[in-house]
Amino acid sequence: MQTPRINVGIVGGTGYTGVELLRLLAMHPHANVCVITSRTEAGTAVNAMFPSLRGQGAIGELRFSDPAKADLRACHVVFFATPHGVAMAQARELVDAGVRIIDLAADFRLKNAAEFERWYKMPHACHDLLAEAAYGLPEMHRAAIREARIVGNPGCYPTAIQLGFLPLVEGGIVDTAHLIADAKSGVSGAGRKNELGLMLAEASDNFKAYNVAGHRHHPEIVQGLNGCSATPVTLVFTPHLTPMIRGIHATLYARLTDPSTDVQALFERRFTGEPFVDVMPPDSHPETRSVRASNVCRIAVHRPQGGDTVVVLAVEDNLVKGAAGQAVQNMNLMFGLPETTGLTAPPVLP
Amino acid sequence: MQTPRINVGIVGGTGYTGVELLRLLAMHPHANVCVITSRTEAGTAVNAMFPSLRGQGAIGELRFSDPAKADLRACHVVFFATPHGVAMAQARELVDAGVRIIDLAADFRLKNAAEFERWYKMPHACHDLLAEAAYGLPEMHRAAIREARIVGNPGCYPTAIQLGFLPLVEGGIVDTAHLIADAKSGVSGAGRKNELGLMLAEASDNFKAYNVAGHRHHPEIVQGLNGCSATPVTLVFTPHLTPMIRGIHATLYARLTDPSTDVQALFERRFTGEPFVDVMPPDSHPETRSVRASNVCRIAVHRPQGGDTVVVLAVEDNLVKGAAGQAVQNMNLMFGLPETTGLTAPPVLP
Amino acid sequence: MQTPRINVGIVGGTGYTGVELLRLLAMHPHANVCVITSRTEAGTAVNAMFPSLRGQGAIGELRFSDPAKADLRACHVVFFATPHGVAMAQARELVDAGVRIIDLAADFRLKNAAEFERWYKMPHACHDLLAEAAYGLPEMHRAAIREARIVGNPGCYPTAIQLGFLPLVEGGIVDTAHLIADAKSGVSGAGRKNELGLMLAEASDNFKAYNVAGHRHHPEIVQGLNGCSATPVTLVFTPHLTPMIRGIHATLYARLTDPSTDVQALFERRFTGEPFVDVMPPDSHPETRSVRASNVCRIAVHRPQGGDTVVVLAVEDNLVKGAAGQAVQNMNLMFGLPETTGLTAPPVLP
Amino acid sequence: MQTPRINVGIVGGTGYTGVELLRLLAMHPHANVCVITSRTEAGTAVNAMFPSLRGQGAIGELRFSDPAKADLRACHVVFFATPHGVAMAQARELVDAGVRIIDLAADFRLKNAAEFERWYKMPHACHDLLAEAAYGLPEMHRAAIREARIVGNPGCYPTAIQLGFLPLVEGGIVDTAHLIADAKSGVSGAGRKNELGLMLAEASDNFKAYNVAGHRHHPEIVQGLNGCSATPVTLVFTPHLTPMIRGIHATLYARLTDPSTDVQALFERRFTGEPFVDVMPPDSHPETRSVRASNVCRIAVHRPQGGDTVVVLAVEDNLVKGAAGQAVQNMNLMFGLPETTGLTAPPVLP
Repeated sequence: MQTPRINVGIVGGTGYTGVELLRLLAMHPHANVCVITSRTEAGTAVNAMFPSLRGQGAIGELRFSDPAKADLRACHVVFFATPHGVAMAQARELVDAGVRIIDLAADFRLKNAAEFERWYKMPHACHDLLAEAAYGLPEMHRAAIREARIVGNPGCYPTAIQLGFLPLVEGGIVDTAHLIADAKSGVSGAGRKNELGLMLAEASDNFKAYNVAGHRHHPEIVQGLNGCSATPVTLVFTPHLTPMIRGIHATLYARLTDPSTDVQALFERRFTGEPFVDVMPPDSHPETRSVRASNVCRIAVHRPQGGDTVVVLAVEDNLVKGAAGQAVQNMNLMFGLPETTGLTAPPVLP
Repeated sequence: MQTPRINVGIVGGTGYTGVELLRLLAMHPHANVCVITSRTEAGTAVNAMFPSLRGQGAIGELRFSDPAKADLRACHVVFFATPHGVAMAQARELVDAGVRIIDLAADFRLKNAAEFERWYKMPHACHDLLAEAAYGLPEMHRAAIREARIVGNPGCYPTAIQLGFLPLVEGGIVDTAHLIADAKSGVSGAGRKNELGLMLAEASDNFKAYNVAGHRHHPEIVQGLNGCSATPVTLVFTPHLTPMIRGIHATLYARLTDPSTDVQALFERRFTGEPFVDVMPPDSHPETRSVRASNVCRIAVHRPQGGDTVVVLAVEDNLVKGAAGQAVQNMNLMFGLPETTGLTAPPVLP
Repeated sequence: MQTPRINVGIVGGTGYTGVELLRLLAMHPHANVCVITSRTEAGTAVNAMFPSLRGQGAIGELRFSDPAKADLRACHVVFFATPHGVAMAQARELVDAGVRIIDLAADFRLKNAAEFERWYKMPHACHDLLAEAAYGLPEMHRAAIREARIVGNPGCYPTAIQLGFLPLVEGGIVDTAHLIADAKSGVSGAGRKNELGLMLAEASDNFKAYNVAGHRHHPEIVQGLNGCSATPVTLVFTPHLTPMIRGIHATLYARLTDPSTDVQALFERRFTGEPFVDVMPPDSHPETRSVRASNVCRIAVHRPQGGDTVVVLAVEDNLVKGAAGQAVQNMNLMFGLPETTGLTAPPVLP
Repeated sequence: MQTPRINVGIVGGTGYTGVELLRLLAMHPHANVCVITSRTEAGTAVNAMFPSLRGQGAIGELRFSDPAKADLRACHVVFFATPHGVAMAQARELVDAGVRIIDLAADFRLKNAAEFERWYKMPHACHDLLAEAAYGLPEMHRAAIREARIVGNPGCYPTAIQLGFLPLVEGGIVDTAHLIADAKSGVSGAGRKNELGLMLAEASDNFKAYNVAGHRHHPEIVQGLNGCSATPVTLVFTPHLTPMIRGIHATLYARLTDPSTDVQALFERRFTGEPFVDVMPPDSHPETRSVRASNVCRIAVHRPQGGDTVVVLAVEDNLVKGAAGQAVQNMNLMFGLPETTGLTAPPVLP
């Protein structure tokens, strides 16, 4: 049997999702990264920018190429690890050339272009492709992803929060008008950029909420949950910054409309067979480090004092299941590979 | 005019609340720490254990004395910075000798002795003193504290959470049957003790919830809020451990029963003149570091998307306003000093 | 007796040394900060930028003023907490108006203007004032500082490293041709600026050396040590970045030429009476946190295996004894106040 | 061709080197962990203790067994991830049964039993086996390791420090009587144990030296360097604790006796072909995170100001190349596998 070989292009590989893609693809037996572009770093070797990739073979020795000159049409798949707005500008040409696209930014996440424009402050460039794009959360849209030409890879918060609410909302057993997501993220979620609040001297030994009035991931989460809910979803979403590099911890609150439900069993049933969702035993408290550098979302369910409020704890590595790992999972689905291919390395603990 | 001089005893000064008391009392113009006890460290100089107190004068050169031999009856006030159960065993004798007591542990917090026994797994030793003790949250019980012989100093979570809910609950404008407190604490809140989960290699670059099924501070918070609420309080309280040394961030959720209320104005009005509660302007996000090493509780109020859920953000330094600083504030009240005496040093930022 | 009142101006108060100056001056009984300038933040209240100063009285309510419009000539003293080059451009006018200057940048540190120009890549603007300026390390130049119109406040590394080598070099008991300073700094030493390598996601859980080939503080240290050495000094200086906010730990190596010397006694004798240098007992290991937020430099001396190499461990808070605290100490000297005025708050530990 | 299958036993797998071994062996195509013992955790599933190993197949579902009952004689190789003294007590029986041993503790590191007894405060149990054991630093003793029945896996500091000094000492171009190793370690190097100084609240935002008078790794390093030096080695070794989980950064100082040497070329030549030693280009500063979770030791060489002192910077992950990864590398050698088998996953950055 022939080993399949997927020619991969990466647009904008100098951020955290970019270097994480490189790390994961270096461990992928079928991925062949043949081009990686960067406006600012054209000509630089990948491993000169990221010395962690020295000695990792071809992937580290690759050089960033000028986006204006790179020909991505020979790739089987192109990942966009870029700011919002880049993928939609290039999608038409690539799709027409038969290249499949996985966008790690927001261009293909929100089905409602007006919502996209409201939150991302730019007009959407290709409404038709937006309509056909699959939302890349395999646990909800696996079949569509398999066939998709374009996948909008979910945001980091939306992955953990949707997975955590999913069984409750699908099951129709909670008051969807009053969902609360209190989420805490490590700083890499904000990207590899110079921002004063992300400096170690500012963000370390500190904790704060931000964007309480409204965060771009809010409409994405609501869209996803509405898609599997019989009743309209209203969500209060409070993001916080916590002094760690990787990891998201979502603490979710929902009021049971049917308090007789066995929520533990419900969660276990819903995620049976899911390779990357781990429902822990009752009374567990998942830690973000227990998924560090891995593609797992680990979940525990509580019902404090037997009351009518369910508390769901969901953790993920924001750069893996919340970004690059999920993108590779989507690539595996799109190319008919076992879903876990290249994603089996255990979490790094401690 | 004579400068008042308060002779202070500290029982159990080797933990974090103990060393924090020493730091604050070193800056207090009227406190004269004359005895500090420790079972394990008797004979050791304070500044041999805590080199940060070298060169800080008498307070650092004091030696820990054997609790069995120390005579605390000559003190004007004794702070207990001990495990639960120690203060109640010595309270009777001290009170009879005219010594006033501030207990930083839980012995005099819960009015219901059965609740105390349920959560702290020991019988209460002095029900009568429990009955007369004041709960040391000045913003709620200032008059009682002034007159008290015994003050039960609040827990760290209860301070931030009660202050944050106070205006809403007193005002009778929220559904008190469904309050949610999602709280995040730095590791010093757990005390200066060898516990695997508190090691840097375990707790750093990590985030987790704990005790979701029930935490000892739960009954204390509910007792306090019930005391100022016309309707019974039910609370879901989720504590989390965040990788920082000091600081608590409480994110509080309550549903408005009267959505026409101006909650910002309500909070500002309620805390006018309070020296240690700072209500920030609308749309603020208080950071824990903005109160580091100071006695301030800083609060912001939000109402995301103009919905019916109020989100309160409250931060404090768990070792100061959540412990030793509040204890000194209580001492000031008990001895007729200006409430801010010795507590005016600005927060340490960055 | 009249309480002296020192009118203070601060130029460029938005960086870490600026906000630290504000914190320290808020505790100073004689300092009256009347003007603080910032090009970018003119009009902003100080406590809007630094919420830690909310509720700290006048100093927090001050507004940054436009440097072009601010009149600093009415001040008794002006601190420059600016990038290199700003102080020397304004020094002449201020000195002529009788204002005294403490520059926290490098303009008045290096006596040799050519050295300044080599390391800071700009011509020196006022050679005559450079010649008269005092180097603001009180433990070496106390008398000169008292009389100075201009003080060049030392760099953070040079403070700890010079104090640590001082007794050995003055004593003429080490081979000054082969001194080694292996120094580790928290990230606030690099200033409050957007620099990728200083982000929490880059600098946390990481350790690295930098500028091993040459660091701007190298000539400053060598100048200082040469000033008290009978033989020429050659120094290898290796700075490192360690994942913490504040603190410098200098590990110094020197080879004894006279191995019979009692180095512990030598250090104790040299620093007797110094209020801000603490020589610890033999076999101690000073921790940076033991001086956090305080003006102390704590030192221990070792001679491993009784060999001919002395190892000195010296710690300081880079923002206090390494910057703003030393600047206030210098101000106290210049205005005839007790040297410790406003600088007595204990270190914050934990 | 038959895939070889190595039956592996682990004694004492509840510490950091234990769980790291499990992580690495889970990625090893030929290792079959069949028994893991723990006195305290007998009966517990590995993944109940380390939830990071949930979903990692057989290795996570294994249960710790009672050391008294476990039969290790059926294993091909047994790793001891135990406190010092355990391996030597069991070595005889296992070796006689044809089992090969890799000890991650110190029992088989120091050839001189008296030195062992001096530093580890216990008599050595099997002098003959000590004599035949190979010292498990492949870059120095590859041939001996291949044939060994017992491998004493090096300590974490000794690995980085010996590799960093190796070309200089072997080359005979430095004054070996005056070597200095200033080393900084993350806290996991101290093991997974309750020790006050290792708590996050104590060790975070802090930096300190420790054991400056003498550290157990000192004789091990000196033994190794003496083994390849024509002149006797005297070393000053200063270990420091830095607030991070993983990583060692060794900064090494040596004085050139022949200043004409091209040290960069010397290092490149010495480590050509070494799969796990990376000599970086001139003027580099390796970061510990660039080797996080990987088996690489990354080295840079400097000669500041062209002087006679060489400064070597060497980084490793103390749990991988400094412990479990090197142990797997040794296993690969002992069983005739390619040396990099199972050790190729890229470092985790950020």
